[in-house]
Amino acid sequence: MIFSSALIENAVNEFARLPGIGKKTALRLVLHLLKQDPAQVKLFGEVVTRMRDQIKFCKICHNVSDQEICSICSNPSRNKALVCVVENIRDVMAIENTQQFNGTYHVLGGIISPIDGVGPEQLNIYSLVDRVQQQGIEEIIMALSPTIEGDTTIYYLSKKLKEFPVKITTIARGIAFGGELEYADEMTLARSISNRLPLESYVQK
Amino acid sequence: MIFSSALIENAVNEFARLPGIGKKTALRLVLHLLKQDPAQVKLFGEVVTRMRDQIKFCKICHNVSDQEICSICSNPSRNKALVCVVENIRDVMAIENTQQFNGTYHVLGGIISPIDGVGPEQLNIYSLVDRVQQQGIEEIIMALSPTIEGDTTIYYLSKKLKEFPVKITTIARGIAFGGELEYADEMTLARSISNRLPLESYVQK
Repeated sequence: MIFSSALIENAVNEFARLPGIGKKTALRLVLHLLKQDPAQVKLFGEVVTRMRDQIKFCKICHNVSDQEICSICSNPSRNKALVCVVENIRDVMAIENTQQFNGTYHVLGGIISPIDGVGPEQLNIYSLVDRVQQQGIEEIIMALSPTIEGDTTIYYLSKKLKEFPVKITTIARGIAFGGELEYADEMTLARSISNRLPLESYVQK
Repeated sequence: MIFSSALIENAVNEFARLPGIGKKTALRLVLHLLKQDPAQVKLFGEVVTRMRDQIKFCKICHNVSDQEICSICSNPSRNKALVCVVENIRDVMAIENTQQFNGTYHVLGGIISPIDGVGPEQLNIYSLVDRVQQQGIEEIIMALSPTIEGDTTIYYLSKKLKEFPVKITTIARGIAFGGELEYADEMTLARSISNRLPLESYVQK
């Protein structure tokens, strides 16, 4: 692409570094910003820079936070004895969006994956063990992806936590609402049959 | 979407203002930036802000420029007697990318469209007439979209320029390279038959 302005070329290149944004999309975004008020564009730049500069990670659960302790961990109405272990902050948001979970979280920051060079020591596992040891946690829900890496991580964590009096559960696997039975993979279908539920619990939902 | 951080929420909202970027994509971009070095994110913000603050529009052709006069108008090897009239700066880039055009441009900044409330007075038409009047322009190529608005604008401009000794041409319409005849619209097909070319000119290309 040939630009007649270095200012525009630099801005396009910066946008094109973002994931899923190619040069053409980047140009479209830059030409859009060019039509905006300079104060508005300045605000955009400031908000993005400030976000990266000032963001903190919660000292308890490692979720993103504006303070040392995140708004979930510092909320007195959340159940601190119930901890949901997730891979990343996106999972926290997904569960928060359901508005059905009243416990707290523990963000591992990844998942055990030898292929990608991610071992237990790269993850926030010691702090989870510390929390269980010191803060009277009653139940840990493993909300990890149903992959080999997820299952490996669940297995590793459950071994680490074996010595403590904590109940370990995993989120239910099964056919998604609206999902067609014939397109479900065999493993999910098999698990959803072996973990079948009494009809009453289905009707309740 | 529920965010546990106002910093992230603000950044997501800013990204989601951009065209074609929804909340989910905005979140993906923000989480990507969160993993980058703060200095890199700061650079991103600065480059975008600087682009909007310092961009100029060429006093001759209204193209975007880092200086008062753009790099095309100030290039002594470009043919100043040949001016290509386009709707916007994106069209300038498209033509520049072909690396086949050695003239200069005139960016109208839009196209006459009564439905959208765009009349001749909103466009850079007077400055085009001035250029023709004062700078010895020999040929004007109308490179506007083949729509009713484009044709209206061409008609309006040609009437405005009628009194000057300038040759007015339009870009060739026809079946695009790689285009299938049967899928071409009737107007394009009809024009491409009535404007048929001798075989020699086809072989030359």
